[in-house]
Amino acid sequence: MELLRVLWWVSATLAASATVPESSRFGALWPLPRSLHISPARLQLAPKRFQILHGSGSSAGPRCSLLQDAFRRYYGYIFGYSKWQNHDEKQPLSETELFSLQVIITSEDSECDKYPGVESDESYQLQVSEPTAVLKASKVWGALRGLETFSQLVNEDDYGSFFINESDISDSPRFAHRGILLDTSRHFLPLKSILINLDAMAFNKFNVFHWHIVDDQSFPYQSITFPELSAQGAYSYNHVYTPTDVRLVIDYARLRGIRVIPEFDTPGHTESWGKGQKDFLTPCYNGKHPSGSYGPVNPILNTTYDFMLQLLKEIRTVFPDEYIHLGGDEVDFTCWRSNPDVSEFMKERGFSHSYTKLESYYIEKILDMVSSLNKKSIVWQEVFDNGVQLQPDTIVEVWMGTLYKEELRRVTKEGHPAILAAPWYLDYISYGQDWKKYYSVEPLDFLGCRAQKELVVGGEACLWGEYVDATNLTPRLWPRASAVGERLWSSKNVTDIADAYNRLTEHRCRMLRRGVAAEPLFVGYCSNETGDGT
Amino acid sequence: MELLRVLWWVSATLAASATVPESSRFGALWPLPRSLHISPARLQLAPKRFQILHGSGSSAGPRCSLLQDAFRRYYGYIFGYSKWQNHDEKQPLSETELFSLQVIITSEDSECDKYPGVESDESYQLQVSEPTAVLKASKVWGALRGLETFSQLVNEDDYGSFFINESDISDSPRFAHRGILLDTSRHFLPLKSILINLDAMAFNKFNVFHWHIVDDQSFPYQSITFPELSAQGAYSYNHVYTPTDVRLVIDYARLRGIRVIPEFDTPGHTESWGKGQKDFLTPCYNGKHPSGSYGPVNPILNTTYDFMLQLLKEIRTVFPDEYIHLGGDEVDFTCWRSNPDVSEFMKERGFSHSYTKLESYYIEKILDMVSSLNKKSIVWQEVFDNGVQLQPDTIVEVWMGTLYKEELRRVTKEGHPAILAAPWYLDYISYGQDWKKYYSVEPLDFLGCRAQKELVVGGEACLWGEYVDATNLTPRLWPRASAVGERLWSSKNVTDIADAYNRLTEHRCRMLRRGVAAEPLFVGYCSNETGDGT
Repeated sequence: MELLRVLWWVSATLAASATVPESSRFGALWPLPRSLHISPARLQLAPKRFQILHGSGSSAGPRCSLLQDAFRRYYGYIFGYSKWQNHDEKQPLSETELFSLQVIITSEDSECDKYPGVESDESYQLQVSEPTAVLKASKVWGALRGLETFSQLVNEDDYGSFFINESDISDSPRFAHRGILLDTSRHFLPLKSILINLDAMAFNKFNVFHWHIVDDQSFPYQSITFPELSAQGAYSYNHVYTPTDVRLVIDYARLRGIRVIPEFDTPGHTESWGKGQKDFLTPCYNGKHPSGSYGPVNPILNTTYDFMLQLLKEIRTVFPDEYIHLGGDEVDFTCWRSNPDVSEFMKERGFSHSYTKLESYYIEKILDMVSSLNKKSIVWQEVFDNGVQLQPDTIVEVWMGTLYKEELRRVTKEGHPAILAAPWYLDYISYGQDWKKYYSVEPLDFLGCRAQKELVVGGEACLWGEYVDATNLTPRLWPRASAVGERLWSSKNVTDIADAYNRLTEHRCRMLRRGVAAEPLFVGYCSNETGDGT
Repeated sequence: MELLRVLWWVSATLAASATVPESSRFGALWPLPRSLHISPARLQLAPKRFQILHGSGSSAGPRCSLLQDAFRRYYGYIFGYSKWQNHDEKQPLSETELFSLQVIITSEDSECDKYPGVESDESYQLQVSEPTAVLKASKVWGALRGLETFSQLVNEDDYGSFFINESDISDSPRFAHRGILLDTSRHFLPLKSILINLDAMAFNKFNVFHWHIVDDQSFPYQSITFPELSAQGAYSYNHVYTPTDVRLVIDYARLRGIRVIPEFDTPGHTESWGKGQKDFLTPCYNGKHPSGSYGPVNPILNTTYDFMLQLLKEIRTVFPDEYIHLGGDEVDFTCWRSNPDVSEFMKERGFSHSYTKLESYYIEKILDMVSSLNKKSIVWQEVFDNGVQLQPDTIVEVWMGTLYKEELRRVTKEGHPAILAAPWYLDYISYGQDWKKYYSVEPLDFLGCRAQKELVVGGEACLWGEYVDATNLTPRLWPRASAVGERLWSSKNVTDIADAYNRLTEHRCRMLRRGVAAEPLFVGYCSNETGDGT
């Protein structure tokens, strides 16, 4: 019967060749490293003998739990968790066996216990040759990226044996900020969904989780200082992130070299805030009387700023990242216009009828608060467009439509760092392989000098939550976001869409094997699909 | 602490009111029954006491395992499986308690052990009043539909107690054929995905699983007569439906009143067939020599028809439904044109250069075979368009683009039954609430007399598999297909989109509770969402 099975297998493999993508000469690497040489020479790996170790001379050792965790995690990704357990122990050593991967942190401070930041060094060198592979990185962040790459180099042959090609890789990201935005306000996302997304981000070398945590629809962030915000503003008692949950997300992200940047978007997008914080929103008027509905944050009351300062102080403590995203997008002036107290306030301040000035007045105060708390700010592009005085280091996130190149030119012309999100709104779904559209974007393709280009710190793939919750998040985001991941990590000249298709198809199957239900690119199958398709 | 929890709950409920849909006066019924009266009077249900029973005078009893299974299944859907286990047993009987649902099959032959068919009677009457509800149906098929409706009437109050409003419902479907097409060739769908889809179909009163089981890309159907078809033509040994699998799907469907109609699409869409069946496909020519590639089925060889007859004989045995779908769509003539033997054959037959005539020649032979095997055929519209002689009872499935109304007119004008699929290709995704588009289709809105309208037997929501596999199937199909479900079941005048939104939002949450990961319609949440969002 065994012979029959092998025959079946061979025939099935041949049968599938028509729809299965060709192999890329870069194997299934995603995103593609900056420089790589893969030799045809193969080394075997024996799961029972292979080890990932701290190499001699490394500034990190067994005390570095970030690496200890990563070693175990990647061992699991490489070999799976159970199927090799029954392998024959008496098998003789191969003549060309890779016995270990030695990880060496070369900098005196490995940053093992720190949080990643925009300045973190993610570069690494990986040399795979007999009898041991060596992964060198200045900091643990580069080691994490190198472990991912190493795991992507290991393959199984037709008999289920593990092998790796001798390789020489030198790698570092093209952009420092490579983000995924998830929106937990329009739909609550259970912790499990967020954690799986962090796994997927690590598989694609993303390093920023932009947590659009609250918005008009709900306020799931459980504040210590203002517990009523979520008590009143969350969808339900079930739909809340406790301080423990938030801590868990930040820790889980850190272990994968991922920053967590929370967004507390004001003065618009704040309907849910008003439920738990009295007088925070502007009362709208219908003629001479309050209509009972509320508009954006009320910018004319001192209590507004007292509250924001206290909340920002808490946020500073809870979220370790250097940056806080302050939003500032899509402020509707209708309600401010209707309110006589707002009009009076504007007259006093000499704002004439410019509500943009009023908005700027508010945002500048918030930006100053963040500055005074020794944090830096990210804002959506309107804040820049409205002429708000920004700190030089305030990052402007460009999100609007098709004119984003012009916006990038203007933002960087003024000397501000920029993040590009506009072409990567992944909630806008369409039929077919739209990953190609995301892949073909060149972030630096705008008019500007070299200094301007250097101000583009990166980009973000955004999955807004109007139509997304735990039921469809993962397959909607992955592998479409992977296209953005390679664009932001790999060199500018990595643009071969056919080669990308071949590698991404394999990469998607690998994500599936690792528990991320990434959807297919096109017709075909994954050889390791289990009975339930995951 | 309990008081605090209740306060939290109340506040959260108020907080959510802005984004949560309003309650429909029809509760969460989906699809809406033909005639219903819901009284404000509430009856309580106690899970430990409530029973679903065979009523006296029913022609079905405990021997009818279809109903026994359905009773247990719906008991589970209504009360959940565990949370009420700890309820206080000593609670006094309520004055207005519903103790049971009595199910009475009124026809002498309950059809309990039969398969559903296009003629099956799915009508039922449901009367809910103290102390017992009565569900009357002529056949078990109506009882299944009524059980679903009954389960949709039961709600939980704020304290977790179950109640139902006194109601009087009389219901039957508007169209006899209400189908979902799944494509297991472009991507293999694991059994579990198919079974979950059958559950969801039952929740939406669909009654036909159109199983597009094989196509160009792969041949997962494991034939008993021709095992090489899947041995060579499936993606892999893993990606095959064994006879046991097929049997399981058919049985599982039958227990839910769902027909399984397999589609074996020829003469196009057959690339994968050619791998396991020598000489079945036409060799294409490059000038005077075979190019090595193959086109549609080779219609000029007797062996083609011998093979098809044997295969159809097997299909007749394996699939109990009265109908077989024979495909017949999208035949590319390029290869036939290139082949000199085909040209010779056409000259002999006097086909001139009409490849349409050649296609018709082939299809007519296949249709005759099916007829001779005492089965009926369904074909895609091209077969009709090409002027093929059809049996009067051959159903034409209309799938092409925007001119489907004209096609419906023509098909029914010729006296053929029709199924409408064109406006319901759910694989064509787009941003936003496209369910409204599907919901707004009126299948009988074409020019024709009453007799023509009566020839429209129903419709199908189609989820072709180019971009769909187990990772994204369920949230992509549900609840978008639910819109089609109501259109095909409910009365023509059920078109209030706002009311539909309110009911469908609740219905989607109910599907979630029952294990179907249906995606959200829009912002909001389900009160019973668990920690992992399902």
